[in-house]
Amino acid sequence: MESLRVIEIVGTAAFSIAGTFAAMEKKLDVFGTFIIAFITALGGGTLRDILIGEVPVKWLFEYGAGLIVLLSTIAGLLFRTLIKNYHNVLLFFDSIGLGFFTVVGIQTGISLGMHPLSCIALGTITACFGGVIRDISLSNIPLIFQKEIYATTCILGGTVFFILLELGVPLLPVEIICLLTIVLFRLLSVKFNWHLPTIWKTT
Amino acid sequence: MESLRVIEIVGTAAFSIAGTFAAMEKKLDVFGTFIIAFITALGGGTLRDILIGEVPVKWLFEYGAGLIVLLSTIAGLLFRTLIKNYHNVLLFFDSIGLGFFTVVGIQTGISLGMHPLSCIALGTITACFGGVIRDISLSNIPLIFQKEIYATTCILGGTVFFILLELGVPLLPVEIICLLTIVLFRLLSVKFNWHLPTIWKTT
Amino acid sequence: MESLRVIEIVGTAAFSIAGTFAAMEKKLDVFGTFIIAFITALGGGTLRDILIGEVPVKWLFEYGAGLIVLLSTIAGLLFRTLIKNYHNVLLFFDSIGLGFFTVVGIQTGISLGMHPLSCIALGTITACFGGVIRDISLSNIPLIFQKEIYATTCILGGTVFFILLELGVPLLPVEIICLLTIVLFRLLSVKFNWHLPTIWKTT
Repeated sequence: MESLRVIEIVGTAAFSIAGTFAAMEKKLDVFGTFIIAFITALGGGTLRDILIGEVPVKWLFEYGAGLIVLLSTIAGLLFRTLIKNYHNVLLFFDSIGLGFFTVVGIQTGISLGMHPLSCIALGTITACFGGVIRDISLSNIPLIFQKEIYATTCILGGTVFFILLELGVPLLPVEIICLLTIVLFRLLSVKFNWHLPTIWKTT
Repeated sequence: MESLRVIEIVGTAAFSIAGTFAAMEKKLDVFGTFIIAFITALGGGTLRDILIGEVPVKWLFEYGAGLIVLLSTIAGLLFRTLIKNYHNVLLFFDSIGLGFFTVVGIQTGISLGMHPLSCIALGTITACFGGVIRDISLSNIPLIFQKEIYATTCILGGTVFFILLELGVPLLPVEIICLLTIVLFRLLSVKFNWHLPTIWKTT
Repeated sequence: MESLRVIEIVGTAAFSIAGTFAAMEKKLDVFGTFIIAFITALGGGTLRDILIGEVPVKWLFEYGAGLIVLLSTIAGLLFRTLIKNYHNVLLFFDSIGLGFFTVVGIQTGISLGMHPLSCIALGTITACFGGVIRDISLSNIPLIFQKEIYATTCILGGTVFFILLELGVPLLPVEIICLLTIVLFRLLSVKFNWHLPTIWKTT
């Protein structure tokens, strides 16, 4: 658990539970469920680290993240009978993970002295691509490409992040506001069925 | 736009438009369309750079490529109503991109002092794997694996490239001939329905 | 063939043949079949090398591995008519490859001075992810996620490996026992239809 921070722990746990429920919908066995939870939680950060050359990837040496995935998967399996609607639970934990991991990705970019545009790209990759790899592995069309507001939420949150920072707001409140923006906007967009235009619908 | 050359600009634009039309066929929203265009145009080069250890990847820091993808996607969306047959347009731009990016990949290999065989492999990866990742993301079986002449075209073009170079032809005409060979061979192979044998058809 | 060892040669050949038969089931053309064989045999090791930062990947410069894939694919194509049941052949060679590549991955970890847990993770990634990428490319749900004992076999073999090593058994017999454990356990688990629980079956 050496270098994991609270924000990473919460994001990892949330995405692991989301992954566990996605795997349940496809009736995988317990090990397949763990792998899918692992991919969902750590896939985005792994892709980010590969793209920026931060290898060897941390989870190969530090077992904190893997342990959180394991415990979250077990929790997800134990509480499954209490849950009526897998899809809503998946949505809730996915939104939490989306918010926390966007902030983690932006922090990575800032710590490398990157331009805000690059930081937002890293945040979006960190938050979204675990789910993309999960969906591809389960033969689903990735959520990110569907007519739902998904990656757009991360970009919106990242933009809010750098506007507030530019205005002189201290880092901690900026991170919290960014996080809440993403979680709330994601949940509201699903509840009220907001979506981006698919302008060729008319054809 | 710092270090983009004409050949990369044309290849990126062509693959972005091909990606835009592939996304239209699946009726994605505008943001999903942009991501698919981005993956199609930059996925092959990104995989190449990861395999040869040229990270951090360039597009995280230089926004020229991303801008070309954005403009090409917008152009594709604007002109969509003028187009009767998405599939033919996709094929045309895909062939252009295939030719240009094979040359880009071969140049990368040459600049690293690699053996012609490795250069041809890099050219093929650069040209083909953006489309592979796009097709997997859209739950299509990748074009490269279907009964169409696809990656074979890049290998043919690459072979022509190094034979001409060996014969003492200067670099620029070699690149142009390689490029034309690939584009024409790809278009002809689809028009006349050439394909490699699937010898187990008899079983 | 510079730095390929017997264990890698056998694993590469076995996975190439398994890949060839998986491609046959989908009736790909000869080039697509070669690419699928290549991905099956070298995909897991490539992912491992990317994750630990061992790039440029070896097969871009040393053609031994590619040559083995080519010869194995040709052998698979030539002998296809002698074979009644593609699926059983695929299973057999897949099990052989699984055993050999788990040992190769563990050796990689040991040579980098990694902890046994990390070595077992590398062994499992090396052995399993070529097949995962193959299955995703062919639009199959990856075997690793299905209700079959698959990755679990590699973890079991890896655990046996380090227990024996801890007990003072010399390296060579340890490797052979690990390998046999994996191949036999995999074959027996399919024959007797062992599987991990899918505890939500009751819902």
